[in-house]
Order: sequence, then C-alpha cells, then structure tokens
Amino acid sequence: MLRNILQPSAISLYICFMLIPFEELKAQLKRVLLQLGFADDRADLCAGTFAANSRDGVHTHGLARFLPFIKAIKAGDVIVDAVPTMARSFGALEQWDGNFAPGISNARFSMDRAVTLAEQNGIGCIALKNTNHWMRGGSYGWQAAEAGFIGICITNATATTVPWCGTTATLGNNPLVIAVPREQGHVVLDMAVSQYSFGKIQQFKSFGEPLDVFGGHDSEGNLTKDATVIADTKRMLPIGFWKGSGLSLMLDMLVSVLSEGDTVKRLTERRSDAGASQLFIAIKPNNNEQTAAIIEEIINYTKSSQPAKPDKPVLYPGENTLKKRRKSLTEGVWVDEKVWEEVKGI
Amino acid sequence: MLRNILQPSAISLYICFMLIPFEELKAQLKRVLLQLGFADDRADLCAGTFAANSRDGVHTHGLARFLPFIKAIKAGDVIVDAVPTMARSFGALEQWDGNFAPGISNARFSMDRAVTLAEQNGIGCIALKNTNHWMRGGSYGWQAAEAGFIGICITNATATTVPWCGTTATLGNNPLVIAVPREQGHVVLDMAVSQYSFGKIQQFKSFGEPLDVFGGHDSEGNLTKDATVIADTKRMLPIGFWKGSGLSLMLDMLVSVLSEGDTVKRLTERRSDAGASQLFIAIKPNNNEQTAAIIEEIINYTKSSQPAKPDKPVLYPGENTLKKRRKSLTEGVWVDEKVWEEVKGI
Repeated sequence: MLRNILQPSAISLYICFMLIPFEELKAQLKRVLLQLGFADDRADLCAGTFAANSRDGVHTHGLARFLPFIKAIKAGDVIVDAVPTMARSFGALEQWDGNFAPGISNARFSMDRAVTLAEQNGIGCIALKNTNHWMRGGSYGWQAAEAGFIGICITNATATTVPWCGTTATLGNNPLVIAVPREQGHVVLDMAVSQYSFGKIQQFKSFGEPLDVFGGHDSEGNLTKDATVIADTKRMLPIGFWKGSGLSLMLDMLVSVLSEGDTVKRLTERRSDAGASQLFIAIKPNNNEQTAAIIEEIINYTKSSQPAKPDKPVLYPGENTLKKRRKSLTEGVWVDEKVWEEVKGI
Repeated sequence: MLRNILQPSAISLYICFMLIPFEELKAQLKRVLLQLGFADDRADLCAGTFAANSRDGVHTHGLARFLPFIKAIKAGDVIVDAVPTMARSFGALEQWDGNFAPGISNARFSMDRAVTLAEQNGIGCIALKNTNHWMRGGSYGWQAAEAGFIGICITNATATTVPWCGTTATLGNNPLVIAVPREQGHVVLDMAVSQYSFGKIQQFKSFGEPLDVFGGHDSEGNLTKDATVIADTKRMLPIGFWKGSGLSLMLDMLVSVLSEGDTVKRLTERRSDAGASQLFIAIKPNNNEQTAAIIEEIINYTKSSQPAKPDKPVLYPGENTLKKRRKSLTEGVWVDEKVWEEVKGI
C-alpha cells in the first residue's frame, strides 16, 4: 500500500506525503518567486509550471526541484530578470540566446515563438543556447498541443549515460519530447534516453529491490539491475543499448550545432545544466476530421494488442498524465510534507 | 571466420558471398530496371541506391531487396513511371502524394524538396503519403548531409513490434534517421525502434545462438532471447521496453497525421508497405568553424568513455558505414552469389 502511494514519485521510503489544492501550491511558489525578484507574469508562469508538474505526477520535476531552483538562483546560475534575445534568423528557423534566464520561461517563450513561426510557415524551429534546466520537458509538448500544434522538444544535459562499448558516462540523458494535439487528450511522449530516470533508480534503491531490466553499470563497467550500485556509479544505460547510445549523441548534436551552444561535455565539466542547449519545433497539422480519425485509429490499433495482464491495458503516451491530472485537481496534489513546510517558511 | 564474414548481413549460413565491383553491381541493376520500363534517370537513381546500400554493408536493404522490389512492380504495388504530386503547401511544410511511385525515387525527391525549402526558410518539411518502401532510411539522411543540411527522416511500416503491456504486434518497427553533415564523414543515425532488425534475428537463428538481450516475445507473450521463436512469432521488442513502445506510436502519428496518409494499421491489414507515410525534415545549420568544432567535441567526448574491451572502441553513428564503404569501393561489394546470378539472368 505504501509502495502504491509512493510509486509515482518516491525518492525515499521516509518521505511523508500530503495532499494540497493545486492553486494553493501554485500560490505559495509564486509568493516565493516574487520575493526573489521575479516579475509578476514570470513568477506566475514558473510557479504554475512547477505546480503543474507535481499535479501531473511528475514529482521529480515539480515541487522537489523548487528548492534546488532557488539555490541555482542564489548561486547566480539562473538570472531571474534576464530575457532571451534573438541571435540570428533564417526564416522559419531562429537562433536565440537564453541569457541564463530561468529554463522554464525560456522554454515557454521558445515554444511560443516556434508556434508563431509554424503559424506563418507550417513549421517553425527555435534553437536556444545559454538556457537553464527546463524541469519537465513534457510541459512544452503540452504547450504546443494546447495551441493545436505538433511539438518536438530536445535538450542536452550533464553526462550520466554510458555509450555502447563504453563503461563510463559521456552521454547526457537527453530528453526527447513529441506531442500531437487531440481533442480528447493530447498525445505526449516525454522520454529521456536512459532506461530509467535517476529518480526511478533512487526509488528502487529505497525499496531495496532490483530493477526489472538492466538499468546501468557497476564501477567495473558490468551491466547491473542493482539500483543501489547505479545510484552510486551514476552510469546509466541508454534505452536499447547501442540504439539509445547513438540517439543520445545525435540529440546533443542537434541542439548544440543548431544553437551554436554548449555541449554535454561542457555542461558536465561545469557539473551543471546551466548553459544547456535546446531545440523547439512546432508543426501545424491540417487539423480536421480526417486527422482526428487517424489519431484515434493509431491509438485504438495499438491498444488492440492482447494484454499480458488483464488489469494492465496498453496505454498511449500521455494517457496516465491526464488521469493523474484529473485526480490531483479533484483530490489535491501530493507533495512532500517536509519540502512543503520549508517552502511555506521562506 | 565464417561468422565474421557473414556478420554484416547474413540471412542464413548457407549463403555464398562473392565480391563484385560497385559499378558492375549498379550497372546490372540499372539494366534490369530499364528493361522494366524505368526512365534512364530514375533507373540510375534506384539502381545506385540499391547498390550503395550493399556497398555500405546494409545488405538487408541492398541487392537482397531487389528481387522483392521487382515482384512488387509486377504486382502493381510499385508504379515505375508515377511521379509525386503536391497535395498542399503551408510554406516551409508541404504535403505530397507519392502516387505509389518507387519508394527510393519518392524519398530522394522528398529530401531534395525539403532541402530546397530549408535553403529558403532555414527549415523545410515534406510529409509524403502513398509511397512505397524506401529500402534503407539512412540513404536520405546521407543525402541531406551531402547537401550540407541536417536531415531527419521517418517512415511507418507494417506491425511487427509489441507495445508495452501487450503481447501481440500492433506497432511498426518504424525507423528514425537523424543526420548531421561533417567534412570528415557525416554523422548518421539510422535506427528502427525494435531492439533487433528482423534480418539480425534471422542471422542469430541461422547460427542457433541466443540473442545477447531480449529481442521479442514467444507465442504466449513472454520475453525471449530465442531468435528461432521470434523469427516465428514476429513479435519484436521495442528498444527500452516502454520507451520505444511510445516512440513507435508517436512516429506513426507524425507521418500519418502530417501526410494525412495510411497508418501502421492499414499497412498491416494490407500486409504490405505499399502506401506508407513518411516525413522528411531538412534544417540548415550555420556551417562554420564553430559548428565543426562542436561536432568534433561531441564525438571526441563520447569516445573518451573507458571502453569495456580494448579492441572495441566507442563509435559514432555512421563511423562503421564509412569504413565499410571504403572497403567495398577498394575490394568490391559483397553480394549473395545466387541472387547475383539470378539478377544477371533477367
């Protein structure tokens, strides 16, 4: 039972969770950001995104990241009043400099701008350098889909993932987000290239249970299912072994080459996601009855696969998120009581 | 030794290989295509692509696919003189109808067109419906890179891959290609979403060896490393279990929604890749000394991972392809003697 409660997010067995209304969570976070010198609209945007991440069950990038975010502001890595500036325009493709503004507001701005370019050209692409951690990449996929656009988002990150034939981490666990708008609930894939997120590995560690499949390497470079070992070595396994290894490298290349920004190597040397490079692509689908039918056809056909366990149906990407969102908005958002009290005390 | 020789491509232990010059291979294929009613330039393009796929070591999509291609022409699935027509233009995004022309010439045309749009707008995207099997997706990534552009290509395919929590195949082994131009050798990822290609599974089956990692499901839906079983069930495992499952669905959605073309479901019901939907994106990088340095930095950093075995270095995507290409152009291209004789006899 405890495990069931903790499963969506737990970092440790010893966390006590409580339920609070979404608006209360957002209001407290906004209050703190205003206190830190954020302008009202940016405080609203960032607080709303942190709160929405917890609301949607992505606890590792919701409230749990708020105190580290404040720390990054105080360390000067995140500049609260910086704004992105255009570096170069090529038409439907633009390079922007994030100027180390908050990752959330930079990413929101960039996807908005990509949507504007896609409105004009069918497709729009923003390459962003010198930005900060965007927290949950899926946020910007949902943003594009809400606007009626297909969204693709990529970021690089510090190296935690081991390339194929290697034993030490020289690849970022770079996420790839793909979102397709859909009236009954958007279809949103938010996928980092490692088999398990670091938060998930820490969760297995807490329960003292082995991973279901290989998740990383031990200190001698052997594949292991031991979460305690991987939490220590931080040598995570890419999805599909050789395939995810290549994919991770390509994602770093796309964001760094197109933005002319920092690579995984440089982020890793600085031990910080401050200065990350990102890509935001928006594409305008010809939204009509036919495209809506195509989306349903793909979902229904995928779900027609004979399930391994009768109570575990095949899901489409984003289906669980919507369920969690509805539950959180009705019953309240799960938060870590200790962190919540700390935030309230700021 | 035999295994070493066969490894790049072998479908069966009983294949006898021989070496022939690249130009001779291409010339024979072109002769057959001309005989089948291809115009000279299209015969040259298609023969050149089939030959190049064998030359680069992608034997499963080179000469090995030529006789099935002729069969598809004779069945009326591939129309030798059809040309793609524009369905709709949105600026930097265009929808095209492939009109069941050969997949190779349709894909070459589409990436060319995407490059033209990217030349004008920084980014260009072609969504193509009613096309045919493009053989090796990487061809069109290399094509974009040769033109100095970043290329992204996606296709859907008949269902052979099992979604997460399912036991029967309702997902296509949809490939994703990402290419970045580089003077010393382009960086090209050509990755289908299943852990092993079907050709690779047949190769393991031939040797009676188990796969190194789970590659699919048995007839009861259990994960297995038994290549013989997977070759029979055709229930292949996506990379990264739940992650590749979501990625495969999204790729089908991108190509089908944007082209308003056929989905994996419809291809599967027809038991044919005729009518596939595809996407070709070209992006113009700001090719200069700085972007060249970024590319080298990413490659060198990835390669700095401590190798598991001293004789197996970490490679970048496309590195092996270039080595094989150089070897084939010097020593000749490996071909299946039986198929080669059959082609010569047409």
